[in-house]
Amino acid sequence: MLKIKNLRCSVQRAVHTRQLAYEGYGNPPEAIQLKSINIGDKPAADQVFVKWIAAPINPADLNQIQGVYPVKPTLPAVGGNEGFGKVISVGSNVKSVKEGDHVIPNKSGLGTWRELGLHSETDVFLIDNELPLEYAAVFQVNPPTAYRMLKDFIHLKKGDTVVQNGANSAVGKQVIQICRILGIKSVNVVRNRDNLEDLVKELKDLGADDVITQEELYGRKKKFPGVKLALNCVGGRSSLFLASLLDHGGCMVTYGGMSKQPVDCPTGPLIFKDISLRGFWMSRWYDIQKTPEKRQEMYKELAEWMKSGEMKKQAFVNNRLEDHARAIEDAQNKHEKKQLFLLD
Amino acid sequence: MLKIKNLRCSVQRAVHTRQLAYEGYGNPPEAIQLKSINIGDKPAADQVFVKWIAAPINPADLNQIQGVYPVKPTLPAVGGNEGFGKVISVGSNVKSVKEGDHVIPNKSGLGTWRELGLHSETDVFLIDNELPLEYAAVFQVNPPTAYRMLKDFIHLKKGDTVVQNGANSAVGKQVIQICRILGIKSVNVVRNRDNLEDLVKELKDLGADDVITQEELYGRKKKFPGVKLALNCVGGRSSLFLASLLDHGGCMVTYGGMSKQPVDCPTGPLIFKDISLRGFWMSRWYDIQKTPEKRQEMYKELAEWMKSGEMKKQAFVNNRLEDHARAIEDAQNKHEKKQLFLLD
Repeated sequence: MLKIKNLRCSVQRAVHTRQLAYEGYGNPPEAIQLKSINIGDKPAADQVFVKWIAAPINPADLNQIQGVYPVKPTLPAVGGNEGFGKVISVGSNVKSVKEGDHVIPNKSGLGTWRELGLHSETDVFLIDNELPLEYAAVFQVNPPTAYRMLKDFIHLKKGDTVVQNGANSAVGKQVIQICRILGIKSVNVVRNRDNLEDLVKELKDLGADDVITQEELYGRKKKFPGVKLALNCVGGRSSLFLASLLDHGGCMVTYGGMSKQPVDCPTGPLIFKDISLRGFWMSRWYDIQKTPEKRQEMYKELAEWMKSGEMKKQAFVNNRLEDHARAIEDAQNKHEKKQLFLLD
Repeated sequence: MLKIKNLRCSVQRAVHTRQLAYEGYGNPPEAIQLKSINIGDKPAADQVFVKWIAAPINPADLNQIQGVYPVKPTLPAVGGNEGFGKVISVGSNVKSVKEGDHVIPNKSGLGTWRELGLHSETDVFLIDNELPLEYAAVFQVNPPTAYRMLKDFIHLKKGDTVVQNGANSAVGKQVIQICRILGIKSVNVVRNRDNLEDLVKELKDLGADDVITQEELYGRKKKFPGVKLALNCVGGRSSLFLASLLDHGGCMVTYGGMSKQPVDCPTGPLIFKDISLRGFWMSRWYDIQKTPEKRQEMYKELAEWMKSGEMKKQAFVNNRLEDHARAIEDAQNKHEKKQLFLLD
């Protein structure tokens, strides 16, 4: 009887799932195809069976499909690096999560644009179960990027000033809000535009102390005392002037290069004011964590800020998997709102 | 009797000395004037009376006289930041040096273009008495700059590679030699010129592993494995390509900006290869030393390398103080050999 029971338990049923996959690098709207497949629903001893709930389309996802991103999943691959899901069941050796827990990917290239997935325990990471969908789906990349750049390079005290360009980017808005929460002033550089007043109001509502245009930055009419940290996602002339705002001993951290120009830094401040230039890549931070404690601590603090409403929800365009071609097209061409796949 | 003896000891005789001074900022050959003055020859309790022996004309000296250097001595001022002298006598409280010792300035802006000087004990620093004049006169700036840049930013192991532009600069030649002594490979970038073969031979004789032109650097035909440190005194396009040679985790240290262009760095390596950009200024290193031990240790090692001939003497044009106008003109316009004032 025992034998038969064991046999029954190990019988693997096949369940149906859909996923957005690519077999070779290419232009994302064409390279990505919706596939229906059957997978087993019983996790092995060290596996977790996950029902994915929501996943965004990020620029890095598109670069990965184009084959121009440093992380290159084995092909064919499922698209998507970020998102969150609910644990349906776990293997007998799994300790870090249990049935009903919410999880996010623990590594780049996991493939989140899918309904169901069997993953190694080490490939997912526990998050706060009470985090609303709009936060949980984009919890892994932008809020931690802002958080770590503000925590890991310069010891910032209340009243210190952070300057940033691309301030209306997703990370930029997180930076503004975390600065406000921590009592740090933020000077925010944006490109001039028709509806500049609306953008200034939006960023000031998030907590921006100053919002200036690139042109005002180049003119440098205003002085900003106590600038310890500069966050650069533009490069070129913008980074040159951003670095020149730094106080003695300050640091400019580059996390993007929207201008497609090299990062420029004035020579004098580098030599005589001992400023330094660093880079930040969230994937590397995750990769080099030896223990989960530092990550858990960060997630706890971010989740509290989100649940209390101190950090605002961002706006999304919600899509179903079958709308993938349009959703990816819009993610490439329209940047007002992030495209989100609802997978539930 | 005792009273009279004390009185005799404190009688200050006046001795004659000549010095190159400037009363206001300007074009160095015109701003600098040879002055004959009388000074007391008895050091106060915390003073040192120094006979200066030799002092070079450095680019920083000229910038200081032009008023464009971060260190601005009180005017009128004696020119010259580097050189060495011999202690004639010391005040009753002086501990760090004694009669007959050789000393160099302990701070920028001391004014070394003079025959005699009464200085605070804290304004001079002991060096090896057996160091030949050609080393001692230029001991304070270039050898320590090369030494510290190789020691303080990246932990270099034998077989690692350092790349540098401006490799035929005074600092560049020190870098080549210290790398050779420490078992570190050096890749040296120079500008193309008519007598390139002679320069390549000169640098290889000093210990250069590779000498390439800027054009070869931009073409990047050769790969150099294990590049941990890049030393940049040029900026612009040269720094862009220099940084791109760095391995994961490497560092580019900027100590000059000969191209008068900003320091350029490719965005990708900064973010994805975790390279960093720093600056180095020898004056700041001296300023922030709290205790003399680290400086003594460095001076000892450098002096040993010089006395043993492992580091070669550089070539000078020797000048007397009365030749100052031509010497300074040549320092501004001719860069083959450093101009030196012999003060003895």
